[in-house]
Amino acid sequence: MERLLIKEISNHENENVVIKGRIFNIRKLGNIVFLIIRDYTGVIQVVASKDIEANSGDIVSVEGLIKKDERAKGGYEMKGNKIEIITKNIETLPFDLEKDDINLNLNTLLDYRTISLRHPRVQAIFRLYDILLKSYENVMRDEGFIEIKTPKILGSASEGGANFFKVDYFEKKAVLAQSPQFYKQIMVGVFENVFEIGSVFRAEPHYTTRHVNEYISLDAEMGYIDDFYDITKKLNRIVKKIMEDIKREGGEYLKLYNIEIDDVLEEIPCIKLSEMRKIIKEKYDYEIPKETDIDPKGEELAGKYAKEVFNSDFIFLTHYPFEYRPFYTMPDGEETCGFDLLYKGLEIATGGQRINEYDDLINNMKKKGVPVEGMEFYVNSFKHAIPPHGGWGMGSERIIKQLLNLDSIKEAVLFPRDVKRIIP
Amino acid sequence: MERLLIKEISNHENENVVIKGRIFNIRKLGNIVFLIIRDYTGVIQVVASKDIEANSGDIVSVEGLIKKDERAKGGYEMKGNKIEIITKNIETLPFDLEKDDINLNLNTLLDYRTISLRHPRVQAIFRLYDILLKSYENVMRDEGFIEIKTPKILGSASEGGANFFKVDYFEKKAVLAQSPQFYKQIMVGVFENVFEIGSVFRAEPHYTTRHVNEYISLDAEMGYIDDFYDITKKLNRIVKKIMEDIKREGGEYLKLYNIEIDDVLEEIPCIKLSEMRKIIKEKYDYEIPKETDIDPKGEELAGKYAKEVFNSDFIFLTHYPFEYRPFYTMPDGEETCGFDLLYKGLEIATGGQRINEYDDLINNMKKKGVPVEGMEFYVNSFKHAIPPHGGWGMGSERIIKQLLNLDSIKEAVLFPRDVKRIIP
Repeated sequence: MERLLIKEISNHENENVVIKGRIFNIRKLGNIVFLIIRDYTGVIQVVASKDIEANSGDIVSVEGLIKKDERAKGGYEMKGNKIEIITKNIETLPFDLEKDDINLNLNTLLDYRTISLRHPRVQAIFRLYDILLKSYENVMRDEGFIEIKTPKILGSASEGGANFFKVDYFEKKAVLAQSPQFYKQIMVGVFENVFEIGSVFRAEPHYTTRHVNEYISLDAEMGYIDDFYDITKKLNRIVKKIMEDIKREGGEYLKLYNIEIDDVLEEIPCIKLSEMRKIIKEKYDYEIPKETDIDPKGEELAGKYAKEVFNSDFIFLTHYPFEYRPFYTMPDGEETCGFDLLYKGLEIATGGQRINEYDDLINNMKKKGVPVEGMEFYVNSFKHAIPPHGGWGMGSERIIKQLLNLDSIKEAVLFPRDVKRIIP
Repeated sequence: MERLLIKEISNHENENVVIKGRIFNIRKLGNIVFLIIRDYTGVIQVVASKDIEANSGDIVSVEGLIKKDERAKGGYEMKGNKIEIITKNIETLPFDLEKDDINLNLNTLLDYRTISLRHPRVQAIFRLYDILLKSYENVMRDEGFIEIKTPKILGSASEGGANFFKVDYFEKKAVLAQSPQFYKQIMVGVFENVFEIGSVFRAEPHYTTRHVNEYISLDAEMGYIDDFYDITKKLNRIVKKIMEDIKREGGEYLKLYNIEIDDVLEEIPCIKLSEMRKIIKEKYDYEIPKETDIDPKGEELAGKYAKEVFNSDFIFLTHYPFEYRPFYTMPDGEETCGFDLLYKGLEIATGGQRINEYDDLINNMKKKGVPVEGMEFYVNSFKHAIPPHGGWGMGSERIIKQLLNLDSIKEAVLFPRDVKRIIP
């Protein structure tokens, strides 16, 4: 008999069917056993006679009768007639999966990913992540962007600084891409609007709850902008659509975290960073340190302000100072046309308008002390006219972390990488 | 006035509108000039008075009147009243973009990507690539797969052998992922059906028209299979849908290459490799060298056979010999439950059933001389029951190469990587 997916059982009342899945829980009671069986579409309770050999964790095939049962979760139960073990669990699980909240410490959670992910609450994170990816792919195409894939092994660092990993590339020195920045920009001259979903790598030696050394960046770059706010408006629209998709499709997963998603505003507030520094000082009596653009505490308070004053989970901080933004950012006096998008008080996207005139780019590189060497292909592209443009890089895992109020971003990565962790 | 996209002009006959785009071609004729202007949605001819300053390659904004004109490509022409230069092209293009076939040598094509891609025929490759990505994302979800993202920096090589790149990872030795193999397999124990679109890296020192050192792999892994043919059937179905999507949405790009896509068969032929070796010997008098499973010439002839006998562009070769398949492949006597999918005589996907019982895996690793060390997280996952499963890795760029009969796979990569090429 063909396998029936558990989500389909309600269409097969009083029929004999075969389901396949993993035994999540097993309880013996007198002469009968209750098995909780999960497949990737749902969960069902199977009642069977107690002489079965199967144990919790085993992968089984069960033939039986579907009966309506108001007491059962989902409203149906199965009278199991024949249980076959497909694959046996041969070692005791390192922790108990049956509690509603498994509450493991982060290292255990990550070391035993194949097991911890069996827990519905942990798994929900990646179900939502899947919805996020799907949404970004669809929304970007709806908005007229074309998906590109750019190389991750580069001849020179795309973001400058020292936080890149070195690769032995045959006889050459190469680095891992810190972002698709150069490539997405020059592709604006071809496709106008491009997006990329890809791995980026940052050799940042610090441990925080907000950083991993490898992540998936949701990038975009758009051409023919009139000004910098065309970018924030576009990103506003996209984030709004993504949140609507997550709300609509992710309901059962959000519920496990007691999350209700508020509608994203049509116009997420845009506030200059210099202004926000003042507001934070006045309103919350906190002074953002002089030697930084904004610190984590500052971001948190900016998020608090957005919520209190605008009832918004999101806020754009704009016009970051010249010294804190990379050489390709369009300057605006001592400031830049660069912005961050915060979600519940954490930066989830960085973007801005880019310099698109060759002479301006060369001048800005000089001002920043960035050599052209190794970046000729990028710089020279601007001789052949690239329209005014800008874009963003958005941290996919940060969106999920903030959405679910996770303690660490590592919970939102299947197999995260940090200074000490490259296994599993 | 707001910008009108060129694809929308037919709705604005006899209206005054603003378009923005790049001047692709400019011809002066007496007192008037003819400008061919492209944006990312289309192309239009603009007629203007000859005293404009713009040149070919410039990015411009044109205000003018849309007129019906049967002689014009697309059926409409614009009477340009006001032409403003948005961004000037400041250096002569290295080659002429106006011919139907620019026919550049591969190095020029790749060195000047930002310019060569302006040519409609070159650009079409990546328009089709975008359709391929979109189709794979959609089709996989329709088939019940969840999208995952797995790390590219690994503690140990995922495919064994020596063709991996080394990365300096803080104090540790790390390598770049040759595939998401381990991760997608162990995720079958959680999500049953997973797919990934991601970068993979192969340190293969040879130059061929079929290899690049970094590419985008379309991976999938599916659980609860009854046998190995569940995988080929699923891949058959997916490839059929993808080709339908490309045919439906990619018409204008396929036309530039005179490509007509034949329907993919409901049942792509499956032939054992050992059988195919005999067929090739008998039918085409070519002996595939003894020291290989199959060589490029053999693949080509297998493709020829599929076309001649089954009228199919695709053929599955199955049961590759034990010695040519990695340790995780399910053995079948001296052969394996491993297959390749060929498209027009070139392997585009490799897959198979995997070993899913812990003891079998350990035994096979011993037989192959593969140490468990560094792969404990992978191997130990099988102690906790992973259902029978298998999957594939499919080379996205190879599909496009074969689709358009490109001479080299590098033409199907925006910024390809080979032994000598890491720039641009």
